[in-house]
Amino acid sequence: MNNKEFISELATRVGMTAKDTQSLANALTAEMTAQLEDGNSITIPNFGTFEVRKKLERVMVNPATGQRLLVPPRLTLAFRPAVAMKELVQKGGENTNG
Amino acid sequence: MNNKEFISELATRVGMTAKDTQSLANALTAEMTAQLEDGNSITIPNFGTFEVRKKLERVMVNPATGQRLLVPPRLTLAFRPAVAMKELVQKGGENTNG
Repeated sequence: MNNKEFISELATRVGMTAKDTQSLANALTAEMTAQLEDGNSITIPNFGTFEVRKKLERVMVNPATGQRLLVPPRLTLAFRPAVAMKELVQKGGENTNG
Repeated sequence: MNNKEFISELATRVGMTAKDTQSLANALTAEMTAQLEDGNSITIPNFGTFEVRKKLERVMVNPATGQRLLVPPRLTLAFRPAVAMKELVQKGGENTNG
């Protein structure tokens, strides 16, 4: 489902126009992006947690040449679904299959 | 940052009360949850994609007893950050460190 379809469903749910709903969704993702850019994690109840994780630097060896290369530390964005969310996703599949 | 702090920041950004902002954020997560429960993936531009992935069934062997156990297939929720988001998170770290 793409963004437009999602916004349309959400607009129906909240009783707002698609345009206003899109503006609010944009503000929400902008605020989340700003927090994550600052390295803050964000927890949404019953949904999950977004967090910035530091991947440590490591030495990579090219097996063909034996050359050693230092891979610098990186920051990556990780999402951990809440327990309730995990169960819902799993249950959804059980309904479909059974 | 917990949900309350996040909603407070977002309310300031959109010029709404914290209560109304919370209601809209709840509707958004409820709609996302409903879509994911149905097995639909959701793409949010410049943010990322949430998708339900099927982990195949596999045979697990208990190394102590040699007993073989069939682990059933599972549905899990995965998040892939957009390229723009990855770069912002990485850049945030560079600003902090340098």
